[in-house]
Order: sequence, then C-alpha cells, then structure tokens
Amino acid sequence: MTDIALIEAAASRLAGHVRRTPFLNAPLLDRLSGRRIFVKAECLQVTGSFKARGGWSAVSALDPKARARGVIAYSSGNHAQGVAHAAASHGAPCVILMPSDAPQVKIANTRAYGAEVVLYDRAAENRDAIGARLSADRGLTLIKPYDDPQVIAGQGTVGLELADQAHEAGIADAPVFVPCGGGGLSSGIALALSARAPGLQVRTAEPAGFDDMARSLASGTRQKNPAPGGSICDAILTPTPGDLTLPILSRLAGPGAVVSDDQALRAMALAFTHLRIVLEPGGAAALAAVLFGEDLPDTVIAIATGGNVDPATFTAALDRFA
Amino acid sequence: MTDIALIEAAASRLAGHVRRTPFLNAPLLDRLSGRRIFVKAECLQVTGSFKARGGWSAVSALDPKARARGVIAYSSGNHAQGVAHAAASHGAPCVILMPSDAPQVKIANTRAYGAEVVLYDRAAENRDAIGARLSADRGLTLIKPYDDPQVIAGQGTVGLELADQAHEAGIADAPVFVPCGGGGLSSGIALALSARAPGLQVRTAEPAGFDDMARSLASGTRQKNPAPGGSICDAILTPTPGDLTLPILSRLAGPGAVVSDDQALRAMALAFTHLRIVLEPGGAAALAAVLFGEDLPDTVIAIATGGNVDPATFTAALDRFA
Repeated sequence: MTDIALIEAAASRLAGHVRRTPFLNAPLLDRLSGRRIFVKAECLQVTGSFKARGGWSAVSALDPKARARGVIAYSSGNHAQGVAHAAASHGAPCVILMPSDAPQVKIANTRAYGAEVVLYDRAAENRDAIGARLSADRGLTLIKPYDDPQVIAGQGTVGLELADQAHEAGIADAPVFVPCGGGGLSSGIALALSARAPGLQVRTAEPAGFDDMARSLASGTRQKNPAPGGSICDAILTPTPGDLTLPILSRLAGPGAVVSDDQALRAMALAFTHLRIVLEPGGAAALAAVLFGEDLPDTVIAIATGGNVDPATFTAALDRFA
Repeated sequence: MTDIALIEAAASRLAGHVRRTPFLNAPLLDRLSGRRIFVKAECLQVTGSFKARGGWSAVSALDPKARARGVIAYSSGNHAQGVAHAAASHGAPCVILMPSDAPQVKIANTRAYGAEVVLYDRAAENRDAIGARLSADRGLTLIKPYDDPQVIAGQGTVGLELADQAHEAGIADAPVFVPCGGGGLSSGIALALSARAPGLQVRTAEPAGFDDMARSLASGTRQKNPAPGGSICDAILTPTPGDLTLPILSRLAGPGAVVSDDQALRAMALAFTHLRIVLEPGGAAALAAVLFGEDLPDTVIAIATGGNVDPATFTAALDRFA
C-alpha cells in the first residue's frame, strides 16, 4: 500500500528526472474571483503533466529483468506520455494503447517519446483484452494509470512539494482541489498532505456527468458514470473510482466538486491571461472549481494537472472566454 | 553604475516579491531543433514579465519621501505593469504613459494594478514632453524603462538565478539569447553572468527592422531604427540603445541576432505545444533566435521575457504555426 514512506522513496527516485513545478498566483485573478488562488502548475512538468511522476515512479520501481522485457499502458494521452518518457529513459520497450479519439497532440507526442502506439476504438473494442494479449505475447508489464501503489506514490510527490510551497507562502489551512479521473493524483496528494500539511485537505474536481468520485465519496459506495465519453475534459473521463484510490479518498478527502465543460474552458482562458500557462480542459477542472465554486474559504489551492491540448480546442476557449 | 553588488542588493530587496522563474526544457523541442534548448520562463513572473524586477528594484530604492509623492513611467505595457505593481505594493501613486496602440490586455492590466493610465498617440505626440509636464506638476519621479542603474540591477537578478540554474543543469558554456529593446535586461544579465557564470555569454535578439542594438554592437557606434513601429514584437521596439546599456553590452555581449515576426510567432506556437507557456511576440524573440538561428552550439539558453498577449494575436500564431 502507498504511504508516506513509499511517496518519499518515489521522490528520491524521481529527483533530477522530474521538475519541482512552480506555485503560481496572480493578483488580478484574485481580484476577479474574490479569493486568493494558488495554482501548482503541473502543466509545466516534463511531458506536460503530472503523469511523468507516476510513470517514472512505476518504471523505476520495476524489477530490472521485467523492465528489460518492456512495459505497456493504456491511456488517452498523459499517462501514455509519462510512461513512454520513463520507459525510454530507462531503455525499456514500451507499448501504449490509446483510444483513436485521443487528442492528436497526445498521440503524436507519445510516439515521439519512442513508444509503439496501438490505437483502439473506445466504443467497439475491449482495451483490456487487447492489452492482455499484447502483454502475454511479449512479456510486458502493465503500468496501470492509477490503481498501482507506485503510481500513486509518484503522483503523491506533488503533495510533498505542495506542503513545502504552501508553508513558504504562509498557507496552513486551505482546500486543495485536484482534477480527478481514477483518483491516483488525488489520493497520492491526500496521503502526502495528511502526513506533511494536515491543514491542507484534498477535494476532487470532476466534469459534470463524470462525477463518479464525488458521488462515491458522498454516498459511501462506489458509483459509476452513465456514459464512457462526452466531456471535453478527456484526461479525466474514467468509469469509476479506483480500487486503491477510493478507500484513501474516503478517509482523507473533502466533498468532491463538479464543473461544467464551459467552466473548464473559461478557466483555461483565465489561466492564459493571468498565469500565462497552457492548460488542457481536464487540467483546468480544479482551477474552474476554485474560480466558480461557492462556499469556499478566502484562500484556495488548485492543481493544474496538464497542458497537452490541441490548438483548436485552446483557440476555441480563447475565442469564447478570453 | 550597475555592478554585481548593486544587482545583489536588488536581489535582496526583491526577495519574496518576485518569483524565481523556472528553467524549462522539452525533449521534443530539442529533437525538433537539433540542439538542447533551455528557456528561463519570465512570462511566469509576477505581472507576466521580467519588468516586475526592474520596477520593484527602482521603486524600492527610492527615497521614501520621493516615493510618497509618486512615480511615473512610459511603456507599451510590461514596464508599465511592473512599475504599477511595485508602486501599488509600496503605497505610491503611479502614472503610466502608454501608446494608444499598446495591446489592450496590457492597458487593462496596468489600470487593474491601480495606476492612472494616460494614453498618447505614438506618431503625433511627444511622450517625453507629456511625461515631463506631469512629473513637474505632481512631483513624480520618472522610472525609466532601461536607462536607470537600479532598473538594470533589478533585471540583472534574472542573471543571478540563471547562473545557479545553468550550473544545476550542468551547463558551463552557452550563449544566452535575450530579447532586446533598450537593453536593460540584456545588460543586467550580462553583468550578473560575467561575475557568476563567465562561460555564459549574452546575445541580444531583436525583430527585423528594429535591430539597432545588433547594428550598434557590430559597428561600434550607436545606431537608430528607421521606423518607430511596424513589428508585432511591441515590447521591444525602441529607437536606439540606452546610454547606460550600450557600453555594458559592447563590453560583454556577443553578436546580436535578428528574427522575423513570423519566426517569433512560430516560436510562440512551439512554446505552446512543447513548454505549455504563453509568450507574447517580443517575449519569444530569443526563443526564435535559438530555434531558427544558424551556427549555434549544441546547448543554448533563451530568456522568454513576457506573456502579456492579446488573445487574437495568440490564436493567430496557433492558427498559422501550431
């Protein structure tokens, strides 16, 4: 199981390979929202998202013989790039299963990191069956996107940095909103903060229609989403909370927030204008939650998780909301 | 005169008020360009550009009585915001003279920082005369954009950080390309690097048609630009090198580079895709120089100076080049 010791061990393996991302704020954004907003900019992470952490953590923790045979992952794009980058850096073969409707920039970058990309039809094909066959044929080790203790530990290193950065900024108590798909990042950060900065509490942020985690936390039982796709927040459309992540978040997280696609796009436009960072829709979900949420305290923190976005989506956000 | 001691003193006054900006790189950008490119992202600075440093340095160095009467600056936008932010933080009144064709976002943000903005017609009105009258009437102290030892010292703090960051990245020798208007940032960085990292040499980057510094450095005599405007790189369109900055750069800088407007826009698009930062055209001039320049070494550094750009300009860059 992931705990603070596993997160600290992951931090040691990640040192020099991932970036300590900056903790940004902007007076004009604060004025606009009426609260103090701090943003940890994981879009500036290697590969453009926090997934570089979990990918590196998992690949570096593998038995060397298994690593030499290779790894496989399935992902709409950010986990793909994180695993592909880590595998290439370790000299390990890498196969990535991606839905054929993933953003082009994510598919192209995953290939550019040296991975073999296998596309599948999200609606018609069974990803797990394809992955199982490839794994068996080639002896590949599956790196799951969130239900893996070492992946959660890698994502948890965001929380270690955040604890220090919030302390430096004089913030002892604040909610920390985290874009949430399967819950790997949220649960990793929650574990790190509960050990290092217990006044900072994780709250998940999900797109409307994909709020399985918020409903699971509220009801106390695992909930599923009705549809497999349909939000612009491609990075965080998972069917149901992870087996490992839900118990962690049930214990440590506050209530989940839900944002609309338009709120995510508007957050992207405000991040462009006031923070000068590029966010993808799913990466802006937590920023949307702190910008447009109600009943929030004066000081709030959002994790901006990724910036791998097709130009057309980004310009559409600016055209409508900047 | 500005020297390393004045830069270090400025760094002490700036501590806690400006950000140590990240030193970014991206494997896919390196592959595309065929060299290792490192980018110091001053677009993530408070107020969206390095000008927050010079503004804070100058305002914080003023005699308190003079500061209480107020300050005045003229600027197309980034110096404006830097001075406005510093003045507001010090409780000092602030008047900013801006050309009426400055980007809307820069005018709006300067006002939002609390400054009184006075617009003038760049072609028909005499900025210096308007400024002199306002200064005399109200007892305001003029904060020049580059020809001021404390402004140069403030900008030089970029060089102090860069010396450390390059050392951490194992870079001892590399050219450091710096977008150049009047030369305040270039000369401040050159002074800091000559003291702290002499293997790193500043080279200026200017837009075609506004390469007064490159021509002045090459000829050994002060050169002027033929036109007052006409490049998209609004932040760095100055008529001629500064009186204080030219001697510093003549002594310490390498040959200047010149980039086209299209190269600056293309650099903005590549920074969007691979670095996930928002750059304005002038802020991308140095990145353009290292991406598209010839006869460069394997490892190059670019300062990305600012990210205050109107959405229409940014989306045009993405539409054409992303």
